[in-house]
Amino acid sequence: MKHLLSIADLSRDEIISLLDEADRFREVLEGREVKKLPTLRGRTIFTLFYENSTRTRSSFETAGKWMSADVINISASSSSVKKGESLKDTGLTLSAIGADAIIMRHPSSGAAQQLAGYVAPGGVGPSVINAGDGSHQHPTQALLDALTIRQRLGGIEGRKIVLVGDVLHSRVVRSNVDLLSTLGAEVVLVAPPTLLPYGVENWPVRTSYDMDAEIRDADAVMMLRVQQERMQGGFFPSHREYATLYGMSKAREASLKDSAIIMHPGPMLRGMEINFGVADAPRTAVLQQVSNGVHVRMAVLFALVAGSDATI
Amino acid sequence: MKHLLSIADLSRDEIISLLDEADRFREVLEGREVKKLPTLRGRTIFTLFYENSTRTRSSFETAGKWMSADVINISASSSSVKKGESLKDTGLTLSAIGADAIIMRHPSSGAAQQLAGYVAPGGVGPSVINAGDGSHQHPTQALLDALTIRQRLGGIEGRKIVLVGDVLHSRVVRSNVDLLSTLGAEVVLVAPPTLLPYGVENWPVRTSYDMDAEIRDADAVMMLRVQQERMQGGFFPSHREYATLYGMSKAREASLKDSAIIMHPGPMLRGMEINFGVADAPRTAVLQQVSNGVHVRMAVLFALVAGSDATI
Amino acid sequence: MKHLLSIADLSRDEIISLLDEADRFREVLEGREVKKLPTLRGRTIFTLFYENSTRTRSSFETAGKWMSADVINISASSSSVKKGESLKDTGLTLSAIGADAIIMRHPSSGAAQQLAGYVAPGGVGPSVINAGDGSHQHPTQALLDALTIRQRLGGIEGRKIVLVGDVLHSRVVRSNVDLLSTLGAEVVLVAPPTLLPYGVENWPVRTSYDMDAEIRDADAVMMLRVQQERMQGGFFPSHREYATLYGMSKAREASLKDSAIIMHPGPMLRGMEINFGVADAPRTAVLQQVSNGVHVRMAVLFALVAGSDATI
Repeated sequence: MKHLLSIADLSRDEIISLLDEADRFREVLEGREVKKLPTLRGRTIFTLFYENSTRTRSSFETAGKWMSADVINISASSSSVKKGESLKDTGLTLSAIGADAIIMRHPSSGAAQQLAGYVAPGGVGPSVINAGDGSHQHPTQALLDALTIRQRLGGIEGRKIVLVGDVLHSRVVRSNVDLLSTLGAEVVLVAPPTLLPYGVENWPVRTSYDMDAEIRDADAVMMLRVQQERMQGGFFPSHREYATLYGMSKAREASLKDSAIIMHPGPMLRGMEINFGVADAPRTAVLQQVSNGVHVRMAVLFALVAGSDATI
Repeated sequence: MKHLLSIADLSRDEIISLLDEADRFREVLEGREVKKLPTLRGRTIFTLFYENSTRTRSSFETAGKWMSADVINISASSSSVKKGESLKDTGLTLSAIGADAIIMRHPSSGAAQQLAGYVAPGGVGPSVINAGDGSHQHPTQALLDALTIRQRLGGIEGRKIVLVGDVLHSRVVRSNVDLLSTLGAEVVLVAPPTLLPYGVENWPVRTSYDMDAEIRDADAVMMLRVQQERMQGGFFPSHREYATLYGMSKAREASLKDSAIIMHPGPMLRGMEINFGVADAPRTAVLQQVSNGVHVRMAVLFALVAGSDATI
Repeated sequence: MKHLLSIADLSRDEIISLLDEADRFREVLEGREVKKLPTLRGRTIFTLFYENSTRTRSSFETAGKWMSADVINISASSSSVKKGESLKDTGLTLSAIGADAIIMRHPSSGAAQQLAGYVAPGGVGPSVINAGDGSHQHPTQALLDALTIRQRLGGIEGRKIVLVGDVLHSRVVRSNVDLLSTLGAEVVLVAPPTLLPYGVENWPVRTSYDMDAEIRDADAVMMLRVQQERMQGGFFPSHREYATLYGMSKAREASLKDSAIIMHPGPMLRGMEINFGVADAPRTAVLQQVSNGVHVRMAVLFALVAGSDATI
């Protein structure tokens, strides 16, 4: 593995190996008073964020620092992009400075793939980790979601996972659909017709407009964030309609199987996507997802950046 | 001590112990070529600043790094608050990522207290350090002020400390009043009537409008920052009136006792709150305050975050 | 050497010693699996950027971290300058916090010199490194350029170096003219008359409007960035004219001597200052410049901040 651009690039075995490694990092760290591994000492990791994100950037930064890497943050608002520099030149500059990995979030779908082509032609150069590119992919999110499902439900194969909400703008959905279907889950997308993407009929999923019918026998329900910043020129249904039709209300929570879990990639809009109290319910795995995020990112950085003879 | 939210939560002994520890950190570091202690290695500290602050954020960051902690900065402008996330969810996210401490500055009074309730219910979870919440408290500022007074005047008990200026909007005043009165100082507030808070008559202080009369026998005069960003819809008196009535002019400086010191929490508006030359006078302790800030914050982080068996 | 404010302050021997040291850092790091030296452990370095810059800030940050310094970033947009603090007080604050060095970029020419006077009167206090002050100087850029020329051409003395473009607003030019003339190069400036500074006739250079004539026998051609953000109220010639008259086109590249190299301080505006393909040509040394930047900054930090008995 040279880069992590899309879940679609990963085989079943590679996914499982990353999840196993993430679990192992969790175990190793939990057993320690001093949460610091020497694994990536002397490696230089850049985060290059063209969109804001508290949780993803600081989760990666934490992962890198816990492995003793040097982590250097660059945000678009203070970067050379303002002076007209191209993504290619920004990437090559970070590579020339000495990046071992570039973790990028970018508003354009496909940007991570492009960056990888620029900075590592022929596979020589820094690793690129896609931390979200437009509406395309967010692979570490899907990995941490899968890890959470596996920890909570004991496995993924054969489980019914229902994803609810703004499918159209969600990179989280695309990565999750790839990963969950690769691991043999039954994936159902529930969304208003205006928030389903063109071509969804070719995805390995079922789609539905009826949340109530679908969640009743679900093993996990993933609520999606309504990405208003990506909705240009109007949003249908309204907030109130959305909450009514596609929100995880108290009543809907009560209709779930006892063993079912509720997930959300965050940041949550309580009161719209998810009921205030339900967000804190025991079956809601949101904070476990966040926590798994650090371990998954450690596993990814370890796989991509550590020397081939490194051990945890 | 689990959190540091308000000076009012600290006993006299706890305050003195923190000041002693800060002095000890100063001594230990001054004796070293390499200013780096292993004390907080493997601890993860987040700064979460909803308001800008060079000095406070970088003072905390320096304190953390000198003790080998991993310090991760989050500024509100690049955070999920923009996406509508609540303080509760931001705090729980940082906790789930692995924060051992969250150092927060927030424009709302009481925000730090709230955050502590969210992230550490029942006392389990990361420590919260209030780095300024609205017009409420800024406890590490009061600690560094007290340390400076103690170093310069040999003690605090029985000393007359006059605080001058925008009392209404000042969290520095509230923390200082709590601390100085707990340690037995005589505290006098001098301010224009429009910049005194409602209920000040119940504080353990005297108030006055006559700066000249009050500073003559003062042991320390603390100038406050005029917080124009908190004055909604007008500021009375005008800048010129303010400088005339409540500025530390050359003449006022000359009227002080020989042993009296002048303090300012910074950033100073020279020419308004304090005369250009007076700001650099030997009796002005501003830079000693800044320097003490790092050691006080080391003491606080040590008390809250280090293991119970840690030694400096 | 206490500060690095301007190339004009450096003797020939000091320049050569810094270049040699930079080469040595490169060699030392290239031979290592773990790119991390203990050289500046326990030193505290602030970057204080009043203007944005990806490459310069992160190059310095990388240099500091590779030598184990604590690096703390302050950007003007989140700093106390917003609250009206003067450069003097900001500098003294960072000094009081414990800065061993302050790396500053500032829009005003002369700001670094001023800062050095404030924070280190009589030579006691933190070192100041000028990372670009207005249109004045950018000494580490000139050092990395010289290192690149020396590596590519085997030396600097007697070489013809042509600098093309926006000379008026370029601090890169001023630093390079100082350095290259000190080392005995023949320096030619090619620029539109509107982008040549007043008094250029007193510089140790030749000026010309005819790019084609000058580059034919050049050993190195340095393209400059068109600093539109510094052009108040109009830019003449137009972008198209500029590209035609002063851009490094394919045809111009073909007219160079075989051994000649092309340089650019970045960020490049491909298509205007330099042809898209030429920017990636083997003779174009842009990425080598970036890479040398880290080693040059390590050498500078080492010279200014490391203890006198330190060794690489």
